[in-house]
Amino acid sequence: MKAKSFGYIVIASSLAGLPTLGQAEWQALPEQAPVPADNPMSAAKIELGKTLYFDPRLSSTGTVSCNSCHNVMLGGDDNRDVSMGVHGKTGNRNAPTVWNSAFNASQFWDGRAADLEEQAKGPVTNPVEMAMKDLDTAIEAIRAIPGYEPMFTQAFGPDSVSEDNMARAIAAYERTLITPNSPYDRYVKGDREALTAQQLRGMEAFKQAGCVSCHSGPAFNGADLARDGGGLFMKFPLFTDNPYVERYDFMADQGRAEATGKAADEYMWKVPTLRNVALTAPYFHNGSVKTLDEAVRVMAKTQLNQELSEQQVEDIVAFLGALTGEFPEQSLPRLPGTPGFTIIQ
Amino acid sequence: MKAKSFGYIVIASSLAGLPTLGQAEWQALPEQAPVPADNPMSAAKIELGKTLYFDPRLSSTGTVSCNSCHNVMLGGDDNRDVSMGVHGKTGNRNAPTVWNSAFNASQFWDGRAADLEEQAKGPVTNPVEMAMKDLDTAIEAIRAIPGYEPMFTQAFGPDSVSEDNMARAIAAYERTLITPNSPYDRYVKGDREALTAQQLRGMEAFKQAGCVSCHSGPAFNGADLARDGGGLFMKFPLFTDNPYVERYDFMADQGRAEATGKAADEYMWKVPTLRNVALTAPYFHNGSVKTLDEAVRVMAKTQLNQELSEQQVEDIVAFLGALTGEFPEQSLPRLPGTPGFTIIQ
Repeated sequence: MKAKSFGYIVIASSLAGLPTLGQAEWQALPEQAPVPADNPMSAAKIELGKTLYFDPRLSSTGTVSCNSCHNVMLGGDDNRDVSMGVHGKTGNRNAPTVWNSAFNASQFWDGRAADLEEQAKGPVTNPVEMAMKDLDTAIEAIRAIPGYEPMFTQAFGPDSVSEDNMARAIAAYERTLITPNSPYDRYVKGDREALTAQQLRGMEAFKQAGCVSCHSGPAFNGADLARDGGGLFMKFPLFTDNPYVERYDFMADQGRAEATGKAADEYMWKVPTLRNVALTAPYFHNGSVKTLDEAVRVMAKTQLNQELSEQQVEDIVAFLGALTGEFPEQSLPRLPGTPGFTIIQ
Repeated sequence: MKAKSFGYIVIASSLAGLPTLGQAEWQALPEQAPVPADNPMSAAKIELGKTLYFDPRLSSTGTVSCNSCHNVMLGGDDNRDVSMGVHGKTGNRNAPTVWNSAFNASQFWDGRAADLEEQAKGPVTNPVEMAMKDLDTAIEAIRAIPGYEPMFTQAFGPDSVSEDNMARAIAAYERTLITPNSPYDRYVKGDREALTAQQLRGMEAFKQAGCVSCHSGPAFNGADLARDGGGLFMKFPLFTDNPYVERYDFMADQGRAEATGKAADEYMWKVPTLRNVALTAPYFHNGSVKTLDEAVRVMAKTQLNQELSEQQVEDIVAFLGALTGEFPEQSLPRLPGTPGFTIIQ
């Protein structure tokens, strides 16, 4: 199967505008995530968001929380090919990491949510994820837990338990989930000892091979390269005349087109961050590739039509390992209790 | 259905020996849990145990950790009638709280595990819980995560990754999960303002009704009343000539007899702790009773053959609320990563 020509044209015209990679070619991760003007951060809001993020009672079975699939104790995902929601149901896409998701220009693999606030509402009612009948049901579940109301009041003012505020609080918490000070960041900031010789070779190979054309910017996700304000979308697989496409069943899912219905979006995907990529196996939208070295081989072939030497692959993998950052210490939240009754039916 | 006479005889003879309730009638929770001589506590062991406790990769699907059903962010359970393990499978018993489980004289509803070490191995291979094929498979999963080996070495010395040490570490962590300084504890220690007038009435009603005959000792679990070293087992339901037995299907499960195969153990159950009971709805071995007030009514009728007044029920519920203790602040563990590969098949 060949890539459709319109897809290639879209990509080619995008690539044409990419000689620079934002302000600097290699950028460190900022110490703070960008915060939208209409959802300012506050300690009360972050604490509420964290509590909701860990609360499995936001799912129909009381067993699946945001953290179940986007596990902040791990690399912000679940190390599964596709995630497992209520009743063991599985979807068809690999859970993207929540770490540094605040630096994405849009959310979900297909970018169908503009921001973290919009994203946060999705899994709650997805029938194979948290499976609440609707957001009203989720809000009822929150109201049934007496301890939440005062937390909403502290974060948003009185009478503020609502789906929008639930999403705002979760998004605010997620904006604290960033991992600065990776070896790469320390190198970029001037510590020339921070990377090994192999990692430096990998960094150069990553650039020379062209990976950086899409995986650009501080989060290596092309968020600096706007398309409709949603960051960079790329066709995947772009080159289809190779054994990987069938082996890993890459074209069973049409990507962004499944959300938009537009032919131009067929096989278009949001470029994912490479931050902490060493921790987020397995890889690709369907989680079909188990190892990072194979992921590098596949990307080089399907996106850049290149065969890398094994040395180059190893070097690039070493460099990607240098994108594992420092995970902030967090306290375990106490979820408000349900004194004397249960919300689980 | 009538209680079998041998059951009643067992209970009656137990009750005969219970005029005192340990050293003092009302006991505060100790600030430290008892620690067995062959598994001393250490910071490294506790940290390893906590990490394992939160690691869903100890389950066949990578989605269920100890914490999934015994959620320390909640009341140490999952607020479900019966827990939900891998693939949405359910067992037939309500998850006991992990909080203060170190004060139980034996573990599981039927006391089939002598201690926390033995208990910790059970759910890992239970096909409706974490569903690992066997403990060797679980240990292989741990070995596949490179970060665990040094943690075991720190806790137990070199070459120490084993099922026994996994269980020892988890048990050591669980011994830190205690909730002292409840209003009840403060009252018993001399703060006469710690309980409300209603709670004090409930405390007296709890004693007068006879609840304290079994729910004795600092954890209100009869652990001070030895039977084969396993604490107190009681027949439930003891009085069966009431509507509750059928309504809540109490006799579908034969309790301890299902583990021992002994007729004398039919419908015998370990007396559960009442610490934090206000947070652990629903109630009873099958989680069939949704509210604490109904649980009090049922217990009075099935175990003591008493009809409590609604005032007595409310007062006892208020007293039980005073058993909610202080939950220690904990840091969120970082689970060791799986760099460059995934263990999930």
